[in-house]
Amino acid sequence: VGQISPWKVLDAKYLYQDQWLQLRSETVLLPNGKKLAPFHTIECANWVIAIAINHEGKIILVEQYRHGVKHITLELPGGTFTDDTEVPEAAVKRELLEETGYASSDWHYLGSSFLAAARMTTRIYAYLAIDARKIADPTPDDGEIIVNREIPWTEFLTGMRSGRVTLHETNHLAGLFQLQLFAAKASDPRIRELLI
Amino acid sequence: VGQISPWKVLDAKYLYQDQWLQLRSETVLLPNGKKLAPFHTIECANWVIAIAINHEGKIILVEQYRHGVKHITLELPGGTFTDDTEVPEAAVKRELLEETGYASSDWHYLGSSFLAAARMTTRIYAYLAIDARKIADPTPDDGEIIVNREIPWTEFLTGMRSGRVTLHETNHLAGLFQLQLFAAKASDPRIRELLI
Repeated sequence: VGQISPWKVLDAKYLYQDQWLQLRSETVLLPNGKKLAPFHTIECANWVIAIAINHEGKIILVEQYRHGVKHITLELPGGTFTDDTEVPEAAVKRELLEETGYASSDWHYLGSSFLAAARMTTRIYAYLAIDARKIADPTPDDGEIIVNREIPWTEFLTGMRSGRVTLHETNHLAGLFQLQLFAAKASDPRIRELLI
Repeated sequence: VGQISPWKVLDAKYLYQDQWLQLRSETVLLPNGKKLAPFHTIECANWVIAIAINHEGKIILVEQYRHGVKHITLELPGGTFTDDTEVPEAAVKRELLEETGYASSDWHYLGSSFLAAARMTTRIYAYLAIDARKIADPTPDDGEIIVNREIPWTEFLTGMRSGRVTLHETNHLAGLFQLQLFAAKASDPRIRELLI
């Protein structure tokens, strides 16, 4: 077993670039002296996700067709943002409002994680909004066809347990785990009741 | 709001291909009549992850440097596999054995999810192994420098709650949520005690 320490980059170039992603190709030197070439990393934007509970105790979800997996998915509201121009907390409020028309004045940061640490740069930031209120009509991005769904929290959880409700995205399930950790130490009864 | 239904692919080509990924570029027609071009999808392998609890009630973890995020990460054992040659259940047993030397005869399927449904094909399959036993030395892949860590389950959970322990990968947090759903309906006390 070698030592766990950063790799040394001997050479780097971009094989492909567009507005969504950059594909970086490197020659790297590992701490054990082994050279890897090429090693590829996908550079792309970070994401925010919102677990939004409205004033009636319903979770606000979105349903849409996702072409990457050719499947209609049930999802948390959220999306990508550009670190240079927006902080995650502003991005998650914007995405919730755009996709669902909901806003909240009671936001809680749940944590962040790496989507695929080995080969992607993407970091996911998860937030909880409680007592959310509908203040506008959704204004989806060009090309987004989104249907809003509202499910009472308990029905949502029991549905996920039985398989009647499926949340398809890995990072949304991760956000729900971060919520469980957060709710287990919360004192607010509206947050504690979000525990499984 | 248009109808949620699959997009029609008018034209497709590959911009980039290597042994890890293919970048597909398409012209697509949405149900609302809008044309998107180019729409890019990253085609890459599926993954398995193992939440492995040994016979002493400790979770088996791996620590390694991840160049995508340039960070040392604490992770569940797991890895990619090729659908053509391996089923997920065989892949997760192989990965656990390779990375940690552990095996178990008591495996439970926790569920699957999409890593990034909009633009990637990757699906993650999560499994629980209980009463795992160390039967061999780890045999990491070429280039993998991995340190095994074993943490008593309760210490792991309370550490995650307080921030003393960080599991870095989104898909590993998702697996832990799938485990919570599974444990909430389990009758085996060894599984029920994995609840937060």
